[in-house]
Amino acid sequence: MNAEQANFPRAGNPLNTDLLAALQARFGTQLSCGSAICEQHGRDESAFSIAPPGAVVFAESKADVQDAVRLARQYRTPLIPFGAGSSLEGHVLAVQGGISLDLGRMKQVLAIHPEDLTATVQAGVTRKQLNEALKSLGLFFPIDPGADATLGGMCATRASGTNAVRYGTMRDNVLALELVSAQGEIVHTGTRARKSSAGYDLTRLMLGSEGTLGVITEVTVKLYPLPEAVLAAICSFDTLDDAVNSTIALIQLGVPIARCELLDVNTVRMVNRHAGLGLHEGPMLLMEFHGSPLGVREQVQTTEAITQEHGGQAFEWAETPEARTRLWTARHNALFAALQSRPGCRAITTDACVPISRLAEALLDSVKEAQQAGLPYFLVGHVGDGNFHMGYLIDPDNASERELAEQLSTQLVHRALALDGTCTGEHGIGLHKMDFLVRETGAAAIDMMRSIKCALDPDNILNPGKIFRR
Amino acid sequence: MNAEQANFPRAGNPLNTDLLAALQARFGTQLSCGSAICEQHGRDESAFSIAPPGAVVFAESKADVQDAVRLARQYRTPLIPFGAGSSLEGHVLAVQGGISLDLGRMKQVLAIHPEDLTATVQAGVTRKQLNEALKSLGLFFPIDPGADATLGGMCATRASGTNAVRYGTMRDNVLALELVSAQGEIVHTGTRARKSSAGYDLTRLMLGSEGTLGVITEVTVKLYPLPEAVLAAICSFDTLDDAVNSTIALIQLGVPIARCELLDVNTVRMVNRHAGLGLHEGPMLLMEFHGSPLGVREQVQTTEAITQEHGGQAFEWAETPEARTRLWTARHNALFAALQSRPGCRAITTDACVPISRLAEALLDSVKEAQQAGLPYFLVGHVGDGNFHMGYLIDPDNASERELAEQLSTQLVHRALALDGTCTGEHGIGLHKMDFLVRETGAAAIDMMRSIKCALDPDNILNPGKIFRR
Repeated sequence: MNAEQANFPRAGNPLNTDLLAALQARFGTQLSCGSAICEQHGRDESAFSIAPPGAVVFAESKADVQDAVRLARQYRTPLIPFGAGSSLEGHVLAVQGGISLDLGRMKQVLAIHPEDLTATVQAGVTRKQLNEALKSLGLFFPIDPGADATLGGMCATRASGTNAVRYGTMRDNVLALELVSAQGEIVHTGTRARKSSAGYDLTRLMLGSEGTLGVITEVTVKLYPLPEAVLAAICSFDTLDDAVNSTIALIQLGVPIARCELLDVNTVRMVNRHAGLGLHEGPMLLMEFHGSPLGVREQVQTTEAITQEHGGQAFEWAETPEARTRLWTARHNALFAALQSRPGCRAITTDACVPISRLAEALLDSVKEAQQAGLPYFLVGHVGDGNFHMGYLIDPDNASERELAEQLSTQLVHRALALDGTCTGEHGIGLHKMDFLVRETGAAAIDMMRSIKCALDPDNILNPGKIFRR
Repeated sequence: MNAEQANFPRAGNPLNTDLLAALQARFGTQLSCGSAICEQHGRDESAFSIAPPGAVVFAESKADVQDAVRLARQYRTPLIPFGAGSSLEGHVLAVQGGISLDLGRMKQVLAIHPEDLTATVQAGVTRKQLNEALKSLGLFFPIDPGADATLGGMCATRASGTNAVRYGTMRDNVLALELVSAQGEIVHTGTRARKSSAGYDLTRLMLGSEGTLGVITEVTVKLYPLPEAVLAAICSFDTLDDAVNSTIALIQLGVPIARCELLDVNTVRMVNRHAGLGLHEGPMLLMEFHGSPLGVREQVQTTEAITQEHGGQAFEWAETPEARTRLWTARHNALFAALQSRPGCRAITTDACVPISRLAEALLDSVKEAQQAGLPYFLVGHVGDGNFHMGYLIDPDNASERELAEQLSTQLVHRALALDGTCTGEHGIGLHKMDFLVRETGAAAIDMMRSIKCALDPDNILNPGKIFRR
């Protein structure tokens, strides 16, 4: 798919020459119009073709952000906030041209308050950088979307990942933001207090707004003590139903499981072939438990008993970091093993999330459809949350495979919506899911979103063409 | 304080006669203009004088809500959603007259999904009613603001309470809403999936919007398994610092404490006098632990060790419901004991919340000021969250005492803001804290809130005059 096929406005238009001159005067060497830089800022990890901006501004301070926004506004030119470029739905593509505002140089950890379990960072700080800064304090920031994304980008997409079943998502872990509005004003939302009922929750409104309502410049997050003890466990099942029902039973019993990941049998076969793991070839749960030494052992015992009740086999658990890593090898290798299974392929990845009682149904029907279509796939799930990723492995030069994958993805999403679910658990809407969003939430909710966008960004300069059509 | 003194528009104006006729035609016996009913709907648990609406509509369905909103809009007349009337900041007062829309008859529990740990209820269902419906399923809904508020009202104020340190607030526990917009349209936000990145987080925008952006008609919440084991514990300290530092240490160690409440020495004295409890007269922590039998014992042991390191004494713990209730008597009696300590008094209660490391400072200075002013007070705190309530016990007929209490409250809030805190942890802004909100969040954030209000409710009919001045 490329931007034109999808009826998006043309990208790559050069900037207005007066704007370009003004940007050059203000930003000097922090401005780049080189095609390599522009192309790098016109793509993400999605399968979309590149839609480069006309220029890239590398912000180094909030004043830079303010001035970039003001110039964009003055010249009615799109401005697209850019973090690590690791988004998955075309969020950062300059589909209407304009300026990419790269916040990657704003990487100061501004404050860590260990006694309050909070940290405040600039938007360009990545999660690995933050965790590096926290390590010696015995603290960590748990949200792990896989990529080493920036905190600003993780806010913009309301990211989560494997730890969400225990620690929540960005929605639950951001206390406060500093942002620059479409008018170029600094706005503060939230405080370091752990809860508040002070007016509209602008923090939560910004989380998941994908750069369309403001440019996030600072983020204050909750931290957690590094768990005293960590245990990992794996277990195989004969059926997906058994794996899912084990998870439901664990959660209903209140076992505070920290990670609970699923691989389907096809994906287990792929990692066996890729890494010679010799795992039992059935659907598999990979789990992690955080707590006191006594507590994690109790959790593992309960889990072993519950999985056995649901036909679990080959239950293994491990305590040392090395042994835990070994158990989790299958999960860490899943994407790579899948891509290697078909050299030269690309993955078109879904992100539906359903109530957990509907998960087995959602998964089984989607697997059946992929098999019937004859398209290779992998399937991993953050099963404790009901979120799963089906990756269709296509030949990127084969238009009919691409179309088939999109068709399967559409069927999968429609099924998830019919099962009370959402089209996106953690990746966001971007360019790719605008129609799904309408179907999910209805025209009245989209109207409400559009009214908010028009009110806060009347000139439609902030990342236009994303989330919904204006 | 009354509405006039605070420069609010006059309440109690009769409704336009055409509107009244239209309401009568549509709602018949579901409409009341009787003065007793109107007065009951023009007050809450705050110290504000009554500001009655011109009429009360008792909605029994979402179609009733839609038609009431449409008529209010047609006649440019304020409409104020009303739940249990248990709010604390004047939220439901008809300060600009208009219609009170009572949702208390919409009390159907629409669906419980035990395997997904979700329930969907009409907005008029109260938390006790919901928990009654859940009991036989071994599940519960943890948010407990004290009063038996409606779920709709708890959404509107982003309520929390004693369990928030473990289970979060309404912000964390509402998955989806149905609401009626100012245009009279039904809007659905969120799904039953546990996480989502699908567009703007309209659910969170509505939570805490105090009836100013839409009328909430249905609420889908997260549920929790009833803990297998519950232990309660109390501990006394010589100083507030010691009590707060114990709490900080507990949280930093990752002890998943479910409740952690503080009484100051003055409040302990009041409950001793009131209920003859014979408690050690020092600052006191009351705690509750939820988990497996083994887990809660481990938590209590850790807690006892930590409190001892911080000078804790008279540590007691209990397991049976009766013994737990006995330990918690002091907390349950605190408000009543305080009110009884000065017969005929009323409490003017604050609701600041600060980062926990600043809590001792915030508390000590506020206590000192109250003592210097010679005004009796009580002090309880959800200390795990840094949220505390100082209640000034005033003679309601004594204007200078009322003024003094407001002055102390203002000093307390300004101090909390200077300590990176918020003016309201869980009560909301309503009429009372509009100036505090401006001071807390700044003019730019208020402008953003105002833009959203204007966009979603251009005629300003939904609960006008609350949160911020338009």
